Amino acid sequence: MSVTLKKAACIGGGVIGGGWIARFLLNGIDVAIYDPHPEAARIVGEVLENARRAYGKMIQAPACPEGVLTFHDDLASAVADADYIQESVPERLDLKHKVIAEVEAAARPDALIGSSTSGFKPSQLQEGMIHPERLFVAHPFNPVYLIPLVELVGSPANDEAALARAAGIQREIGMFPLRVRKEIDAHIGDRLLEAVWREALWLVHDDVASTEEIDDVIRYSFGLRWAQMGLFETYRIAGGEAGMKHFIEQFGPALKWPWTKLMDVPEMTDELAGKIGDQSDAQSGQYSIRELERIRDDNLIGIYQALKAQDWGAGQSLRQMEERFFERAKDTAVRETPDYTRPLVLHKTQVSGEWLDYNGHMTEFRYLQVFGDATDAFLGHIGMDAGYRAAGRSVYTVETHIRHLSETKANTHISVRTTVLGHDAKRIRLHHEMVDEAGNVQATAEHMLMHVDTAAGKAAPMASPLTERLAQLSPGQRGIAAPAHAGQPIRDIGWPVREVEAT
Amino acid sequence: MSVTLKKAACIGGGVIGGGWIARFLLNGIDVAIYDPHPEAARIVGEVLENARRAYGKMIQAPACPEGVLTFHDDLASAVADADYIQESVPERLDLKHKVIAEVEAAARPDALIGSSTSGFKPSQLQEGMIHPERLFVAHPFNPVYLIPLVELVGSPANDEAALARAAGIQREIGMFPLRVRKEIDAHIGDRLLEAVWREALWLVHDDVASTEEIDDVIRYSFGLRWAQMGLFETYRIAGGEAGMKHFIEQFGPALKWPWTKLMDVPEMTDELAGKIGDQSDAQSGQYSIRELERIRDDNLIGIYQALKAQDWGAGQSLRQMEERFFERAKDTAVRETPDYTRPLVLHKTQVSGEWLDYNGHMTEFRYLQVFGDATDAFLGHIGMDAGYRAAGRSVYTVETHIRHLSETKANTHISVRTTVLGHDAKRIRLHHEMVDEAGNVQATAEHMLMHVDTAAGKAAPMASPLTERLAQLSPGQRGIAAPAHAGQPIRDIGWPVREVEAT
Repeated sequence: MSVTLKKAACIGGGVIGGGWIARFLLNGIDVAIYDPHPEAARIVGEVLENARRAYGKMIQAPACPEGVLTFHDDLASAVADADYIQESVPERLDLKHKVIAEVEAAARPDALIGSSTSGFKPSQLQEGMIHPERLFVAHPFNPVYLIPLVELVGSPANDEAALARAAGIQREIGMFPLRVRKEIDAHIGDRLLEAVWREALWLVHDDVASTEEIDDVIRYSFGLRWAQMGLFETYRIAGGEAGMKHFIEQFGPALKWPWTKLMDVPEMTDELAGKIGDQSDAQSGQYSIRELERIRDDNLIGIYQALKAQDWGAGQSLRQMEERFFERAKDTAVRETPDYTRPLVLHKTQVSGEWLDYNGHMTEFRYLQVFGDATDAFLGHIGMDAGYRAAGRSVYTVETHIRHLSETKANTHISVRTTVLGHDAKRIRLHHEMVDEAGNVQATAEHMLMHVDTAAGKAAPMASPLTERLAQLSPGQRGIAAPAHAGQPIRDIGWPVREVEAT
Repeated sequence: MSVTLKKAACIGGGVIGGGWIARFLLNGIDVAIYDPHPEAARIVGEVLENARRAYGKMIQAPACPEGVLTFHDDLASAVADADYIQESVPERLDLKHKVIAEVEAAARPDALIGSSTSGFKPSQLQEGMIHPERLFVAHPFNPVYLIPLVELVGSPANDEAALARAAGIQREIGMFPLRVRKEIDAHIGDRLLEAVWREALWLVHDDVASTEEIDDVIRYSFGLRWAQMGLFETYRIAGGEAGMKHFIEQFGPALKWPWTKLMDVPEMTDELAGKIGDQSDAQSGQYSIRELERIRDDNLIGIYQALKAQDWGAGQSLRQMEERFFERAKDTAVRETPDYTRPLVLHKTQVSGEWLDYNGHMTEFRYLQVFGDATDAFLGHIGMDAGYRAAGRSVYTVETHIRHLSETKANTHISVRTTVLGHDAKRIRLHHEMVDEAGNVQATAEHMLMHVDTAAGKAAPMASPLTERLAQLSPGQRGIAAPAHAGQPIRDIGWPVREVEAT
């Protein structure tokens, strides 16, 4: 699969615009940005830093080379050669109209234009356009670099082919585009969110609950259900064997009960705003916004990885993203032939603050995670991909020898130098050297890998393209001298003499 | 920590009552049930089967011996000697009054009485009671055996000490009791849920979205956020550095926009009920309710385990539950002096669904995590604790040799058999064998550990109590023959002959 989108332009680089930029860049797309805000570069940089950290933790596939980010002093030069333009300027219709007119004047006639608006309908944004058919609402959710949903909304003026192209591009950057059938103020998600928000404001207003208590109600109950199934599928289960119709019959009447009396909009007085601000400070004020963002992102990553293990919901979006990254790594490998007379550098990463043990160093098993990722990168390099595995073949590690040489600290940029020590028809013997920025060796690993027939659960000879790629690297790699510790055991140290025991 | 609750009684064994029963039993509490429904035993049995399966997968601690379940033909005998009684009968006030009167007539005067009602206020339920002070609302969420939240609601007639006792019992069975400040129809959670439900019904009614599209909007966007943070903490982040007050000022006005026009209650006509039923069938009809329940439970377990790794939200409830299970195992276990002439079993765990790789097996580095935990358990056994480390001493792994022998699957219960192969004044050579329930060896690890002066960053001789404990186990352990693979290297396999390269 090749990427159809070459270059994106982003107009506006706040929290939402910055999130779009990060998502494009980390999926390998170049981005041109226009934002006249004096601190735009700083804000985008901060979002991007969070996003890089999150992708480094989340993606269990070779990293995708980042796209190139360029800042522009004028809107016209930013959008001039873009295939896809995303507008994320403040929520004022006059401002959106002005920006869209400028985009249309400078962009290619076939460029797609998405708006991040949470409230306006596409027909409102299309007013006065020459080519309204290619402008649509593409409403994302914060953090845009991690949350998959994008509400894709068109009006009767839209071109179906343009909307399909937009959905394809959004899928390419790991999103879940949901095509909304009818344009409506605030689309779908914010309708539901506003309903809850309104109800929550009343509860705070009337001192029934504090902001923290409302949050606890959500995250200890239905929030857990909704991360994986929505409203209707959850209630279908509650209806039991009798199904959805039974549930509706049983719970439908509750709609008429007095619970629904709080449907008015509470007046957002200074007093109510102050109460919410104070309660929120008491609840979350011990964390900076930056800390909360990272806690949120780490939690989202864990939830995605858990759902990926079940191949369900947002976990499927992550799996598909990783498959694209594997594919892209394969494309890159085909294009570039490294110097096989030297160790190969196929995996780089950064030590996450989450990887530390009680001694403050990278915890023991994370070394094997890095070496395992380096092994995967090597296997990807010689052609093992989803297609190869789909034929019932894989490569398993059967033996590992790690030597810990240094206490690796948080945030160290590490890279792995890989050497093939030998191979036969079924096995590959690898050596990895993990080095920091200064080239200091932190640890080494020696592995024996076995090629297997996964259905039979037995060792089996490798097939093409692994065989060809190994033959290609073999002459160079066999010229590299194996390190002295390769092939050496952990030595017997015996038992102490009595004097030591008596210490 | 010992359990204060000895016996619970449950009146009503439907989906909610059955969930309470399962939660009590799997946390080691005996339960007496009264439910005149002819199929009560079958329904409770099915919920219990799901719950046993879920706890088996979820709890990474020694299992807690299950409580004893007894079915009763009359309410009076079920509640007679119960410490805590939970009523989960259908949502009709006259029926609830009748049941509560019968409970009060037969129960001990100090027994606590909780009601699962989702709509009624405690003061309504307390009408006509002799001892209203010990009746409260304890409103749980489906599936009750997995979702932590219970809304604990009292009226002015309640005794604070009784409510505190109820909260303590709910915590003991792994729940998160949220004490609601003011009684209000439908408490907090169902207020919020009904607001979303009403909005969702309009979206279906007006053909803006199908049930599946609404569910996708939720589970690909804000559901993911709400599994870990709620509404206010999430929006606090969205407000950026300017905080909650900025968010309110920025988004407060949106409440006045026309989005809110759909606040009426839609008429639940046969047509609307039929549309929802049909759409739900199209969305989820490929799964039976039983399958959906298990998918939901597996997803919840993965989410809990991911949040436990971050020590956040519902993950904290799971961690606390596991700590109670560990404590209980310690309390109940006979203080044995280990038999040092045999391998030591100091670490047991279960393969988490989050630990799988793309082959569907436990991913490579998780083996080292298990072995590292076993090493930590061994070091703890010989006396290395926070106090020992506080004196600037620790033990680092310097060398590791892992052999992978089997493809370990999700949810496998594994234990590690540890043998000391030798030690001197500064070093310990360990061997671990990781086995499944049937005793099949999944992997082995040989480690060289080095005792260090952490300030100097240098090897240093061990001190008391490590020296004494090693001397104590030394005679027994030195009699165990080292396995044949110990002290063996990864062997050289050379390079293939030309024929293999040409394959």
